[in-house]
Amino acid sequence: MFTNRLKQVWAEGRPALNGWLSISSPFVAEIMAGGGYDSLTIDLQHGALDYSGMLPMLQAMRASPVAPIVRVPWREPGIVMKALDAGAVGIICPMIDTAEQAAEFASFMRYPPRGTRSYGPTRAAVAHGGYGTEANEEVLAFAMIETKQGLQNVEAIAATPGIDGLYVGPSDLALGTSDGRLAPGFDPEDADLVASIKHIAAVARAKGIKVGLHCGAPAYAARAVGWGFDLTTVSGDSRLLAMAASASVEEWRRLTGASASGSAGS
Amino acid sequence: MFTNRLKQVWAEGRPALNGWLSISSPFVAEIMAGGGYDSLTIDLQHGALDYSGMLPMLQAMRASPVAPIVRVPWREPGIVMKALDAGAVGIICPMIDTAEQAAEFASFMRYPPRGTRSYGPTRAAVAHGGYGTEANEEVLAFAMIETKQGLQNVEAIAATPGIDGLYVGPSDLALGTSDGRLAPGFDPEDADLVASIKHIAAVARAKGIKVGLHCGAPAYAARAVGWGFDLTTVSGDSRLLAMAASASVEEWRRLTGASASGSAGS
Amino acid sequence: MFTNRLKQVWAEGRPALNGWLSISSPFVAEIMAGGGYDSLTIDLQHGALDYSGMLPMLQAMRASPVAPIVRVPWREPGIVMKALDAGAVGIICPMIDTAEQAAEFASFMRYPPRGTRSYGPTRAAVAHGGYGTEANEEVLAFAMIETKQGLQNVEAIAATPGIDGLYVGPSDLALGTSDGRLAPGFDPEDADLVASIKHIAAVARAKGIKVGLHCGAPAYAARAVGWGFDLTTVSGDSRLLAMAASASVEEWRRLTGASASGSAGS
Amino acid sequence: MFTNRLKQVWAEGRPALNGWLSISSPFVAEIMAGGGYDSLTIDLQHGALDYSGMLPMLQAMRASPVAPIVRVPWREPGIVMKALDAGAVGIICPMIDTAEQAAEFASFMRYPPRGTRSYGPTRAAVAHGGYGTEANEEVLAFAMIETKQGLQNVEAIAATPGIDGLYVGPSDLALGTSDGRLAPGFDPEDADLVASIKHIAAVARAKGIKVGLHCGAPAYAARAVGWGFDLTTVSGDSRLLAMAASASVEEWRRLTGASASGSAGS
Amino acid sequence: MFTNRLKQVWAEGRPALNGWLSISSPFVAEIMAGGGYDSLTIDLQHGALDYSGMLPMLQAMRASPVAPIVRVPWREPGIVMKALDAGAVGIICPMIDTAEQAAEFASFMRYPPRGTRSYGPTRAAVAHGGYGTEANEEVLAFAMIETKQGLQNVEAIAATPGIDGLYVGPSDLALGTSDGRLAPGFDPEDADLVASIKHIAAVARAKGIKVGLHCGAPAYAARAVGWGFDLTTVSGDSRLLAMAASASVEEWRRLTGASASGSAGS
Amino acid sequence: MFTNRLKQVWAEGRPALNGWLSISSPFVAEIMAGGGYDSLTIDLQHGALDYSGMLPMLQAMRASPVAPIVRVPWREPGIVMKALDAGAVGIICPMIDTAEQAAEFASFMRYPPRGTRSYGPTRAAVAHGGYGTEANEEVLAFAMIETKQGLQNVEAIAATPGIDGLYVGPSDLALGTSDGRLAPGFDPEDADLVASIKHIAAVARAKGIKVGLHCGAPAYAARAVGWGFDLTTVSGDSRLLAMAASASVEEWRRLTGASASGSAGS
Repeated sequence: MFTNRLKQVWAEGRPALNGWLSISSPFVAEIMAGGGYDSLTIDLQHGALDYSGMLPMLQAMRASPVAPIVRVPWREPGIVMKALDAGAVGIICPMIDTAEQAAEFASFMRYPPRGTRSYGPTRAAVAHGGYGTEANEEVLAFAMIETKQGLQNVEAIAATPGIDGLYVGPSDLALGTSDGRLAPGFDPEDADLVASIKHIAAVARAKGIKVGLHCGAPAYAARAVGWGFDLTTVSGDSRLLAMAASASVEEWRRLTGASASGSAGS
Repeated sequence: MFTNRLKQVWAEGRPALNGWLSISSPFVAEIMAGGGYDSLTIDLQHGALDYSGMLPMLQAMRASPVAPIVRVPWREPGIVMKALDAGAVGIICPMIDTAEQAAEFASFMRYPPRGTRSYGPTRAAVAHGGYGTEANEEVLAFAMIETKQGLQNVEAIAATPGIDGLYVGPSDLALGTSDGRLAPGFDPEDADLVASIKHIAAVARAKGIKVGLHCGAPAYAARAVGWGFDLTTVSGDSRLLAMAASASVEEWRRLTGASASGSAGS
Repeated sequence: MFTNRLKQVWAEGRPALNGWLSISSPFVAEIMAGGGYDSLTIDLQHGALDYSGMLPMLQAMRASPVAPIVRVPWREPGIVMKALDAGAVGIICPMIDTAEQAAEFASFMRYPPRGTRSYGPTRAAVAHGGYGTEANEEVLAFAMIETKQGLQNVEAIAATPGIDGLYVGPSDLALGTSDGRLAPGFDPEDADLVASIKHIAAVARAKGIKVGLHCGAPAYAARAVGWGFDLTTVSGDSRLLAMAASASVEEWRRLTGASASGSAGS
Repeated sequence: MFTNRLKQVWAEGRPALNGWLSISSPFVAEIMAGGGYDSLTIDLQHGALDYSGMLPMLQAMRASPVAPIVRVPWREPGIVMKALDAGAVGIICPMIDTAEQAAEFASFMRYPPRGTRSYGPTRAAVAHGGYGTEANEEVLAFAMIETKQGLQNVEAIAATPGIDGLYVGPSDLALGTSDGRLAPGFDPEDADLVASIKHIAAVARAKGIKVGLHCGAPAYAARAVGWGFDLTTVSGDSRLLAMAASASVEEWRRLTGASASGSAGS
Repeated sequence: MFTNRLKQVWAEGRPALNGWLSISSPFVAEIMAGGGYDSLTIDLQHGALDYSGMLPMLQAMRASPVAPIVRVPWREPGIVMKALDAGAVGIICPMIDTAEQAAEFASFMRYPPRGTRSYGPTRAAVAHGGYGTEANEEVLAFAMIETKQGLQNVEAIAATPGIDGLYVGPSDLALGTSDGRLAPGFDPEDADLVASIKHIAAVARAKGIKVGLHCGAPAYAARAVGWGFDLTTVSGDSRLLAMAASASVEEWRRLTGASASGSAGS
Repeated sequence: MFTNRLKQVWAEGRPALNGWLSISSPFVAEIMAGGGYDSLTIDLQHGALDYSGMLPMLQAMRASPVAPIVRVPWREPGIVMKALDAGAVGIICPMIDTAEQAAEFASFMRYPPRGTRSYGPTRAAVAHGGYGTEANEEVLAFAMIETKQGLQNVEAIAATPGIDGLYVGPSDLALGTSDGRLAPGFDPEDADLVASIKHIAAVARAKGIKVGLHCGAPAYAARAVGWGFDLTTVSGDSRLLAMAASASVEEWRRLTGASASGSAGS
């Protein structure tokens, strides 16, 4: 039987913790899959990888209970369907501006008569028993709200049949809605931007669908859970690694008093 | 002109901070190369990669001043010379038990008449200007002391011409010298083991060569610098990532009160 | 001189046998290329691979007389032209619903003034002597008929200049035309579906173009040849392997009486 | 600080020399990056590689001052933004026919409010310090003029905000504008085609943007510089290699008198 | 807890069925891992892959209960230890001629004080919980008997501490013991060769260790189980695929009467 | 029938022209395979690639008549046999110092009873029809003479059964025999070194085996043919490319007068 872990988490009344994968490495995926996340999203949009990097990562995650999600680069049928065929149980689609775009994306996600997905779950059927009959029920379609137009149309997008959730990227939302006033970044505190983020969550809940937020720090994500977010992403592989390495190096240099190469020196 | 960053750091009287790469990913290497380390060692022995994974990592590290080092799987001429030809400026060779083995390893590192290295620095000559004439001077040969026999022969090994430094792996040293008494692990506190580690450092310094220690935490590495270690490795990519991810997940679960999947629940 | 093997087979009055490649492996491609097929199709749509996996497979097939075909993920000019530049001598394009879509796909296949293909056959010119002047004549454009709308428009699609053949995928055709009545699958026996399949073949022949059918078993393919199909695909690498392995395991378990792991067991 | 080498070259009043990469190999990229070019373009359109081949090549070029440019397969937002996120400082977009298409391409290149690029410069921010704030200023958008329609609309295309330069591919321009009269090829001498090429350059200069030409031989490129071209591409990796190998083989056969295999013999 | 599936199967009194992987593809590994085998051996000796191909295959097999085994190319410490670090739970080592060689191989398999394995189970510890403390108990060392000398020394080899089993390759045994009389091949019927095979099994059982045989057909493997073999390998991925493809093609050609390309034709 | 092209060339009384591959790219291999060489050697010793890079290159060369040769990193049975199993028809083994080493290398090349090669020509049997029975006759073993000791023992090495030819690398021979007097390099003119090179050729011819020389320029190779060399290598992919790129760049800069970036400028 093929079941989507995220749906289980939500059925148990819990918020979901999502991790983020931007490094093309099945070993990184395997390490992260052992980290205790409810789901892990492979980012084909801004991550440093494409389909050929994604596939072995999905395979390396299979032994763990984590739900494999993929963010696609764009609203293009080819890659949405390829990611599903590769075994992703949810797709995050960026830059949904209108209900029409949402419907188009949603159609790529389900087999006829519910949608226009083409049949051929080559690896998905290997990884998920009973895939053929249950895929339409189990996969999740997340539409990203991150532009001025998307924000204006958020009610219609959320009401689009086949859209299972909204996902908010605060960097693009900041750039897209502030006319240059705000810089991109995680965990924003700008009042207008926070109000927009809360508005998207409220709309999603009103329409009976899920809503997720891309966060940097656990503390902000915990606040977002309080705002009604069903899924929060907390940082990702490349950022976790870069920050951990920097912290380690800084501590060593502080303790040893040894300056960095090129610096004034001890 | 081809210069080895590690030699520069030491010439300036500073201890060197080494990072460790076990993940087969040029993007991880590029991130780590920007982290402020003096050198980065690609671990072909226990890391999850081989030559074909190493090569693009060396290329991705070239833009940074960090010295690229390689630990080879074993004392085999093929891979020692291939790692040098690929552009490594130092080689760490595991499991050196005798002066004879040390001499054999050292011979692989230099062109005749100083050694038996075969000529053909295909990528090294692209990455390092003036490689052909300066390689013999600039590359560094580190012999690992990590067995009972190696410890017994450490003076002869350190005195072997062509050996530029010793490197200590505490896990293997614990397993190899304690007859089953000690478990493997970083940053040991066992008195006998610490005494052995300090002894290796003392021998190296007495013979006028360098000495490095594989550590887990910056604090332990700082102590090792105090013991006379010229180079200390502080953790590595896979461990930094796994620990950072776990800490992030735990903080989120603590703040949200949301239990992990499979747990008793919120 | 660059000649398309499929056109030769048909010129000799024979039906063509097509194999199917869903595994990203040049060794699999080389094995299958030695299997006696007239053509082999690399499936970039539902197969577990993309462009970077396809390229060495096309190279590994070059020594065999088999015609290399590619099914693209979608009706997108980028990948259609990249597959041709990589040396494919035919393209199967999924989900053609209208004559307008067929014309758009056809335009991607030929250089001006016949179409809009961009010039730069980087690898194709290495693999196929005389490519530049003969490509427009030799390549084959197959439009897939697999939706209700496509079936309704099949005559107009088949009459579109530049379309050299139709190709039928019974799984999608079943899903797309039965309003949920039929499950996806190879080798259908449903009377309505079979009638649709035969209708597509009849239309193709009436318009003077070729027609192909995706089959599971040789026996069904042989029947399809009798229905007028010029090309029949009989299973593919992943399915052949999975079935052969299962049959081998089952025979061993039957002969030895040794139950599978996790079973009640002898 | 993130600066685009091409802009520096032009600021110094010099024409730029561009190299071309069609082989999927970071070692080839590293060799070419050491060859003295001002910029190197990875060709995702006709080159034998895709995103996964491009990424390590961009990394291998980082140590050299050369500006990394990418030609995308088509005017698709997914790959344009992925190439920028991977660190390309300029994008060449093929087959721009209208000002509307040019505006669409230009929008993919800049963050809001100037365009619609999505934020997430995962590897670009690692490779280029200060990327977030300077990317909009530093990246370059080149629209290719290579069709009859594009030539007719060249003034409007050149006047499109966000288009920084035009780029001319003579093979496609020959095919696209001669109704079958001209064959594709580098370095054309046909009077009409040369007039078109010069016209494109004149339009670009009149509109205050840059203009580039794809050439085969240095001598032709030098003439193009005289026609006002700011950037000229002189051959590329696969062609340079094939010609050098052939010349070497021919010289050997001439000097030794040894015929090629399959020939009549010495 | 880390447990070796093969040991479980044997503890339950059942013979084990082993599959064989010669294709460098994690998707092939995943398909085969779902095929019902008790163990799967990745063949680094004669298979068309090396370490970098093996690693993602081990990851793709992790979700299945099958025991991952690796045959190494030769009795070299580097690759034996790398395969274990990558997560293999058993190693088959070719060409063991003497007890001394067997002891050397066995030493590579266990940590001190039982052997000389170096500590650093980078991926193994991710894949197998509790690896560090249980690895010495759980991993299996198989020595191949396939030469005249190995056959002569089989009793001493089987009695070597740390050798957990013998493995017989009939092709090499035929070549190695018949002085040119026998051709290589699976499932031999030559009386002398069969006697040698049975002798090896008898010696293994007498010494209390396991014994395996490389077979082609299930029927022969079933006979071998009767001869006392604890593990039988039945064909492998490349052979299963090649045979299934040939059978499919032949059936199609027989049914359609369509001759193969290049044949006399229908 | 499996025939070695090099043996054919020699049977026809012609010297052979060998090309050299140091770049890990099947497309480079395919381009070079179309260049008119009699054989192409993939250099696993000093080239920037290993087994996993070599395999698709051998596949990409299969469609051309060129003989695929591999230079192994060292005299190790694992890689010699793996290169043969992958389809190489000749092996060049570096650093043969003694007849004993030559005999050891030779034994790896042939199946018993002539040698100790293990049976399992997985990809070789796919690429070369009749491999099993003809391999022992067709493959070629070249021993490199490039050290002082090797030069002293050249008669015994050349007389070793199973050695089919000698191969001379002048860089290593210069370093190895001049006690620091000579620098490494192609096409030497030093009288002593040339005398050594001619001596090796004379010994080979006296013993009835073949002899090859690594050269840089066709003119030198032609002289070497005159000295009796049966095979001459003339440069290789990376060097041909680097020189062709440099020449192209220099010509452009000379013609345009545009200085290189970082130079004083026009």
